Amino acid sequence: MKKESNPYKMERVTVVKVGGKVVETPELLQKLLFNFSRISGNKVLVHGGGRSATAIAKQLGIETQMVNGRRITDENMLDVVTMVYGGLVNKKIVAGLQALNSNAVGLTGADMDLIRAVKRPVKDIDYGFVGDIRDVSTRELELVLDQGVVPVVAPLTHDGKGQMLNTNADTIAAELAIALSRKYRVQLIYCFEKKGVLFNPDDEDAVIRELDYTSYESYQKSGVIVDGMIPKLDTGFSAIRNGVEMVYITNSDELGSNVGHGTKLII
Amino acid sequence: MKKESNPYKMERVTVVKVGGKVVETPELLQKLLFNFSRISGNKVLVHGGGRSATAIAKQLGIETQMVNGRRITDENMLDVVTMVYGGLVNKKIVAGLQALNSNAVGLTGADMDLIRAVKRPVKDIDYGFVGDIRDVSTRELELVLDQGVVPVVAPLTHDGKGQMLNTNADTIAAELAIALSRKYRVQLIYCFEKKGVLFNPDDEDAVIRELDYTSYESYQKSGVIVDGMIPKLDTGFSAIRNGVEMVYITNSDELGSNVGHGTKLII
Repeated sequence: MKKESNPYKMERVTVVKVGGKVVETPELLQKLLFNFSRISGNKVLVHGGGRSATAIAKQLGIETQMVNGRRITDENMLDVVTMVYGGLVNKKIVAGLQALNSNAVGLTGADMDLIRAVKRPVKDIDYGFVGDIRDVSTRELELVLDQGVVPVVAPLTHDGKGQMLNTNADTIAAELAIALSRKYRVQLIYCFEKKGVLFNPDDEDAVIRELDYTSYESYQKSGVIVDGMIPKLDTGFSAIRNGVEMVYITNSDELGSNVGHGTKLII
Repeated sequence: MKKESNPYKMERVTVVKVGGKVVETPELLQKLLFNFSRISGNKVLVHGGGRSATAIAKQLGIETQMVNGRRITDENMLDVVTMVYGGLVNKKIVAGLQALNSNAVGLTGADMDLIRAVKRPVKDIDYGFVGDIRDVSTRELELVLDQGVVPVVAPLTHDGKGQMLNTNADTIAAELAIALSRKYRVQLIYCFEKKGVLFNPDDEDAVIRELDYTSYESYQKSGVIVDGMIPKLDTGFSAIRNGVEMVYITNSDELGSNVGHGTKLII
């Protein structure tokens, strides 16, 4: 392929992960999609949808159980997340992007055999139908990207034996970014509600501009970086160590304009 | 394109429409997917899911209203069908086909801008968010097909302005078949629970082998062909009049083996 024979001219792909709060608030979603649609070149949007899943589950009389920030996914909950992530949230985003002249296609890990996973082995906790990623196959995804089509990926995978599995969206974004970096220059942007990773949790403007792994570890030890930020940064550092050119953590308002305003991970 | 310059060597595409009862019964679905996966050459599966939508709606406290066999789709019901058709049913089928080594991709009309529709104008009845198809754009779908990927299409469309719409699966199957017939030799197979169109409603084996439009009209007048069979046959005759090579109505058990066992529509 031409692209592989000339690495200095590889095309760029921007992988954006956007969390539940943004995709589940119509005005925020609209703004995000507008910003996202203005990113030039190839791009992929990976979305969450946990709040909607919890709300629909509640309406269906299904209780949501979270352990370490992860959803326990029994058979009923799997149906809920398959409906909500793969259907409701995904198609709202796809239709919204079409309205902005971004030709999007909604995918889960089962579609085009994009992401295979194994059901997480039961140790202390039985997470149920939660998938740990084993293989990302981007052959068909690349063809789609090369047509200017924008993949919109829901946080679901499959096991290749007919079973859908619930998989963390941050992890999916990082693994997709790593897999795409074999052929493209990839930047990965995690969008969330803050301006970046903060060095002072009480000051929303105290953004760490560049974060290396040693500093990350010491921020963890001192309790500055905690909770849900840790798995997000772990996947981010994994991406930068495995071929992804740039990883940013930023506010979705900054998307498409100046991503430099968030936190940049450096090795 | 090579294909267009040599019409005598056009590839074949088989478009199969399968109704709710089959896709919503695990054993029947498994059998259908096995038969479908054995069809050689390019293929597209269009599915329903009305029974599941009605069941989930009921669980959510949303009442289902049908008029002339069509679902009244208010905002809440649109969310339900988007979840159930685009998420739950579609992904079960996609994961099931992957397990049979058919590399499937689940799509709605919004994905890849495949099917645009307009919200049905309110005359006697306000059907709500129901879409009448205006444009089928198969450019990206053809690229997907040419890669040996199998599109699995849910009965949803969009209006190009960000609005998803509920659209009848029989109609989607026929319109997709017509659009694909510009480039491929297309056969359209409607699968349902009977062996074909019956000339005696009390005899399950009384299958009409070949049905032309004049006979169809007289069967309607005499009350032999009634109810849901009429819109199905109308879309089938529309397909055969608009470039689709063959249209069959048959039992899903016959799929992949001998479709000649059902009813063949002829002009």
